[in-house]
Amino acid sequence: MLSISQYREAIIDYLHEKIKVKEPANLYEPMVYILEQGGKRLRPVLVLMATEIFDCNYKKALDAALAIEIFHNFSLVHDDIMDDAPIRRGKETVHEKWDINTGILSGDAMLINAYQLFENYEGDTFKELSKLFTKTAIQVCEGQQYDIDFETRDNVSIEDYLLMIEYKTAVLVGASLQMGAIVAGTSQECRDAIYQYGRLLGIAFQLQDDYLDAFGDPETFGKQPGGDIIENKKTFLYLKTLELADRSEALQLEHLYTISPAANSGKIEAVKALFESSGAAELTRKEIESYTDKAFKILDRIELTEEKKEPLRSFGKILMDRQV
Amino acid sequence: MLSISQYREAIIDYLHEKIKVKEPANLYEPMVYILEQGGKRLRPVLVLMATEIFDCNYKKALDAALAIEIFHNFSLVHDDIMDDAPIRRGKETVHEKWDINTGILSGDAMLINAYQLFENYEGDTFKELSKLFTKTAIQVCEGQQYDIDFETRDNVSIEDYLLMIEYKTAVLVGASLQMGAIVAGTSQECRDAIYQYGRLLGIAFQLQDDYLDAFGDPETFGKQPGGDIIENKKTFLYLKTLELADRSEALQLEHLYTISPAANSGKIEAVKALFESSGAAELTRKEIESYTDKAFKILDRIELTEEKKEPLRSFGKILMDRQV
Repeated sequence: MLSISQYREAIIDYLHEKIKVKEPANLYEPMVYILEQGGKRLRPVLVLMATEIFDCNYKKALDAALAIEIFHNFSLVHDDIMDDAPIRRGKETVHEKWDINTGILSGDAMLINAYQLFENYEGDTFKELSKLFTKTAIQVCEGQQYDIDFETRDNVSIEDYLLMIEYKTAVLVGASLQMGAIVAGTSQECRDAIYQYGRLLGIAFQLQDDYLDAFGDPETFGKQPGGDIIENKKTFLYLKTLELADRSEALQLEHLYTISPAANSGKIEAVKALFESSGAAELTRKEIESYTDKAFKILDRIELTEEKKEPLRSFGKILMDRQV
Repeated sequence: MLSISQYREAIIDYLHEKIKVKEPANLYEPMVYILEQGGKRLRPVLVLMATEIFDCNYKKALDAALAIEIFHNFSLVHDDIMDDAPIRRGKETVHEKWDINTGILSGDAMLINAYQLFENYEGDTFKELSKLFTKTAIQVCEGQQYDIDFETRDNVSIEDYLLMIEYKTAVLVGASLQMGAIVAGTSQECRDAIYQYGRLLGIAFQLQDDYLDAFGDPETFGKQPGGDIIENKKTFLYLKTLELADRSEALQLEHLYTISPAANSGKIEAVKALFESSGAAELTRKEIESYTDKAFKILDRIELTEEKKEPLRSFGKILMDRQV
């Protein structure tokens, strides 16, 4: 088996080989621009890794891996339009560098292009990959819609929130791993188990991301904390605080989420204090641990030698071992 | 075989059965809204018709037909955002009734939903339908990009223009017919021939649409003529006039395409006079006839009884028999 960085190199080489600007250039240049920008390539690495774990050469999975990476970037291009985001990975977003119409149309072409890559697989493998991709892609759209809806809804439950992050983020992690299993031709049991591993790890990862957005060390987290608080985002921490806090604290938090002071540091500190005093911060840490544990327990049950499971386990550990 | 209006009813019934609002409602309501609006349902009717012509029950093709209709409406939702169009089929466009973000995301979900409908076909049929759909969908995106590019390009050739309308409009007509042939399990020869019939008829139809936009009778054409001229659209008529006219007439036309008078009727009449005097109007009529003839000649060559070909022939005739 290769290392994570070797899989990453393999996918980048394949991307360079397959994704080139062609006519009409205005359609394909934005696609090459966003795909060449980098990013961690976590999802396609997972596709390749899963393929090898199940005793199949990762090269057979390059098309599926590239499809997942293109889909992920399609969703970024369209989401960035919806969020009016000017910067992504330190560079101008597509709709900022070109315009909204270019972002819409290039994104559409990327989604279709992702489907096209599955055509390199025969019969059942083609159908299984396409079906999984379609199911996942619809869930990602639904997750994005829930996320948008939550901004203006004041009755979001913890359950609603968990479904939203599952659809918006976690199912694509599960699908990436399952695609490797499909390419490798494993049993349905293995496919389901590895999907669940990815899904649970994806939920844990997103909860951790929310947690670190409030409590992360700016040095190691890589961005200034408090962004979600400034934007009044109804994260797990926020919803859990409302659930746990007494009436006066809950009202305080709701009030803080209506104000936009010129200097945010006071608001951020006050909100974080409520996250802590209510017990929500502690409970969020436990929830992250619980999802991570559940993921690793699923891994235990998959019929593979420990040696085979090791890369998946260490991938999970690296993913979750960020500074809390 | 059923009549065109019976096929239309069949597709509308199937649409009602399959396309319903579910959660998250904000994602699916716009989809139901645009799909319930009506429209001529030409493309899905062609899918069903082609299926029966090749001796297969049209009911087997309902999923493919619905996929084509959903895709067509997806492209309308995204194109209307790009064109900033407030009205479609006499009603508010999706992004006007909701907002741009809703239009983008619902459109994405529609595109993915169209793919999902092919899952109801087994093995090779599934793959053939998906591949044809993907190839066609990418061409439609490329056609839309060319159309956008042409607005700011001053070196558009007749060849460029024909490729643009082929991709943006005609390939989907060809693909609709070919899908029927795939569902019916015909030979590759039949599939190719019926695709070409649709493609050529689609080009003829679009050229006629351009022609009628200038010279059509408002009574029978259904909209006020001159829209393309007011918007300075580089149609076949415009490009052909530049090619045929002498230097002074060409300069006159180019000048007219730079002005936006408060009252447009003078500009429209002057442009139409140049379209006529250059011989471009006459030549466009001939070109429409030539594409239509080519389409019907392809039909002659398909190995089917005359009785079987009759519905396709009369569909073509109805399509092209608008008041010129």
